[in-house]
Formats: sequence, structure tokens, C-alpha cells
Amino acid sequence: MTYCLSLLCREGIVCVSDSRTSAGVDHITVQSKMRVFVEEGQRVFCLMTSGNLSLSQTVVSFIEEDLLRGKAEPDVPHLLNRGTMFETARYVGQKVRQVGELDRAALESNGLSFNVNLLLAGQIAGHPPAAFHIYPQGNSLHTTVSAPFLQIGEFKYGKPILDRGLTYHTPLREAVKLALLSMDATLKSNVSVGPPLDLLVLATDALKVSERVRIEENDGYLRDIQQRWGAGLVRLVAEMPAPQFPAVPFQPGAIVP
Amino acid sequence: MTYCLSLLCREGIVCVSDSRTSAGVDHITVQSKMRVFVEEGQRVFCLMTSGNLSLSQTVVSFIEEDLLRGKAEPDVPHLLNRGTMFETARYVGQKVRQVGELDRAALESNGLSFNVNLLLAGQIAGHPPAAFHIYPQGNSLHTTVSAPFLQIGEFKYGKPILDRGLTYHTPLREAVKLALLSMDATLKSNVSVGPPLDLLVLATDALKVSERVRIEENDGYLRDIQQRWGAGLVRLVAEMPAPQFPAVPFQPGAIVP
Repeated sequence: MTYCLSLLCREGIVCVSDSRTSAGVDHITVQSKMRVFVEEGQRVFCLMTSGNLSLSQTVVSFIEEDLLRGKAEPDVPHLLNRGTMFETARYVGQKVRQVGELDRAALESNGLSFNVNLLLAGQIAGHPPAAFHIYPQGNSLHTTVSAPFLQIGEFKYGKPILDRGLTYHTPLREAVKLALLSMDATLKSNVSVGPPLDLLVLATDALKVSERVRIEENDGYLRDIQQRWGAGLVRLVAEMPAPQFPAVPFQPGAIVP
Repeated sequence: MTYCLSLLCREGIVCVSDSRTSAGVDHITVQSKMRVFVEEGQRVFCLMTSGNLSLSQTVVSFIEEDLLRGKAEPDVPHLLNRGTMFETARYVGQKVRQVGELDRAALESNGLSFNVNLLLAGQIAGHPPAAFHIYPQGNSLHTTVSAPFLQIGEFKYGKPILDRGLTYHTPLREAVKLALLSMDATLKSNVSVGPPLDLLVLATDALKVSERVRIEENDGYLRDIQQRWGAGLVRLVAEMPAPQFPAVPFQPGAIVP
């Protein structure tokens, strides 16, 4: 399984992905799910993938083939020559559909679903930063000021902390903490999501990678916030007022359906 | 959808269930998912259900029919005459299988799954308290000292707080807070789970209902801990040390796949 998330704030974008892939519990490998594409000063993109690893690799292979072809044939549409983030997301969606034409029928005839989801986050010069979720059908959905985060894969464990803590106006440094805490909740509750983690920060209008870090399981900062967060939650529960419910009387022997 | 949970601690059992049922977003009703059966001093059970409401109602109808029959025919096996919690859970599993024989083929022939899950928690005089998850196949799984909670329905949002905060040795009053906070994380992140909530507390060896409360959306205590918890989490994030990652240098124009 996978967990990837992309937070869009006024100050910039934070992306985090795990790197565990599994085909059954006895076939677990480490595979980065984050790819970064940069033309400094022009455009910067982070592409994250979840679902069937074969399908996401095939989507990325098609994207890379187009980039190679584009060097010889400038009219070929590719990831780095679309005019807007929206057009770039639609381009990625076309690649997903291309893979669908190639592989969907064969997968479905064996009872497997065509499962590939992507997050594309980034900025093109002269346009605002944006993040898109590209679905297996090739259509896409983007973040807004009122819905500033996107998640793919095992998203539920890490959603409550984002629902509570993140807004579009959250400072970028706080957003990095929230992204890592959201990932950490998932690591703790689901063994199919695992380190190392890839963390990327794109400051608004920098048009380059502001931070890119691979965080290993024993990383000092990750360990530190895991320990502080765990202890802090337990302290917070202890500080909650005790429930003061009245006891509800039951008749002896009563069956209350 | 549904979220029900059962926490087994040394001092007793805490059960919480939501009460939203939906067949599409335009057919939402309030339906308690918790039933309590008491023979004070002898046995006390809490039965919670998730999945297809028709199936869970049918399981409960079979259980109630057996209870009625048992009044005239003492040899009929029913919910309140099994010797142990394990046998009681297996009895409920038999009722699930009985519903399977009745309805599974018709559902599956229309592309619907046979989806019904139950939590049975309680105590029989002379035996320790226990909680069981009864699956759609009728088999069951029980809590242990090292795995002291069970969840059915939309369980992922509310799992991280339990993974962090609950052990078998957690005092019962703290367990009540954790159960409500776990439910509250789910309410906040998933609109298909909704109040009012049913809360039940069974103190070990009391063999009666210690607390049973219906908590409405505007309940003062629920509102209070929601507000304190939300504010506390935001404060906790702010207290985390800021990430101090080194910036990773990128070559201008580099494409980093």
C-alpha cells in the first residue's frame, strides 16, 4: 500500500510520500513514489503515485518517453511544455488513459481493478501553485483554498489531523509538521505503509525545489516528533475533563433491545 | 456507514456506536446500532452491528425469536443461556450463518456483498469480561491484553488515537474519553458517521450496566471535549520543534526522475 499527500498553503506546497510496496506480506520492497521535475525559474512539479506499481511505472514511462521525444520534436505535448497546471494535469490524465487502453482489459479479465492514482503538485512561472489528483479514469480534481489538501492511498488514518490542523493560511513550516504527523499516524496504524519517507517543499514563486529530503526510519527529527507527539496526545487525553454522565437505572433482569 | 468500537480494560468495557444509516445521501436515518441485554448479576451483553442494515436487523430478529422460544422451550440455545462469552459469540455467528443461508445468494446475484459485522462485548458471572468481532462468515475474533480494542465500520480515522493511547491497563474513565475522541475523529472526517452516539460502560464484575448514555450532537460534554481536543492538537503541533532539514541543492534545469 501507499500513502502520499500534498498540502497547498499560501506560502507553498508540501508533499510527503512513503516508499513501501508490497505484493503480499512476503514481497515487500522500497520504492520511491515521488518524482520531481524541475526547470528552474520556469516550472517545478512533484508527481506521486499509488495503486498498482506496474500501472504507475507505465504511466511514468510514457511521460518520460514523451520528454525524450520532445527534445527532437518540439511540437510533441509533454509534461514540461503545457501552458498551465490544469493542462499539465490533463496531460498526465491522457497518459493514464493510454495505459488504460493498453492494460485495463487484461487486468479486469483476471478480476483485478485498473487501480492507479496520481498527485501532481507544482507551479509554472506566472501562474499560482496548484495540486491535482488524477484518477484512474484520467480526470482530475484540484485543491482549493477551502479544501487545501489531497491524499492518495491509505488516506484515512492521517486525515483527522489535517482536518483539524491545516488551512490554506497555515505557515509552511507548520504544514511540514502536519504532513509528517499525518504520515506518522498512518505508519503507526498500518504496517503496509512504511519508511523511508520522501519530503518535498516548494515555496510559492521560488520555481525551484526549496527542500527535498529522504527521511529514514531512524531519522532523529522523525523520532523526536513521534515521541513528542505520542506523549503529547496521552497528556492531552489526561487533561480532558472526566465524563460526568448520570448512571441510567436498569431494572434487574430487564432485556433492553 | 457506521463506526462502533469496544475497548476492553482491566476495570471494564467501554462501547460506543454512532447512529447514522444511509442508503445514498438522500436517505439518511437515525438508527441505534447498539443493543443491550441484561440479566443483572448473571450476564450483561452489548451487541453492535455494522454493514447492510437489513442483514443486521435480520440477525437481531433471529436472536430475539430464539429468546422468545427459549421462554417456552428451555433447551433452545439462545443468547442468554450459553455457558461462556466464547459460546455466546459462536451462537451469534450461527445466527449470521442462518441469515447467510437465507439472503446471501440473492444479494450476490445482484452484485451486492453479504456485509454484516457485529461486536459482542460483555461478561457472564464467574468468567472474565470479553469482546468479540463476529464476521460475515460467522467466525469470531476476540480482544486480548495486547490487542484490547475492536472496531467495525469506518474504523481507520479513529484508530491512531487508540493505537497511541489505549492499553488494557488504561483506567475506565480515560478509556471513555479515548472512545469518544476516537469516535469524534471519525465524525469530523466522515460525514456518513453521525450522532447521536450511544455510550455504554460495563465495570468488571458489576454484571450490570454501569453507564448508558445517548449523547446528542449538542451534548455539552461532547462539545467541550471536541473544542478542547481541537485546540489542544493545534497547540501540540505548534509545540513540535521546527524541521531543520538541509536544503538539497538542485542543478538548474535538472530533471530528477
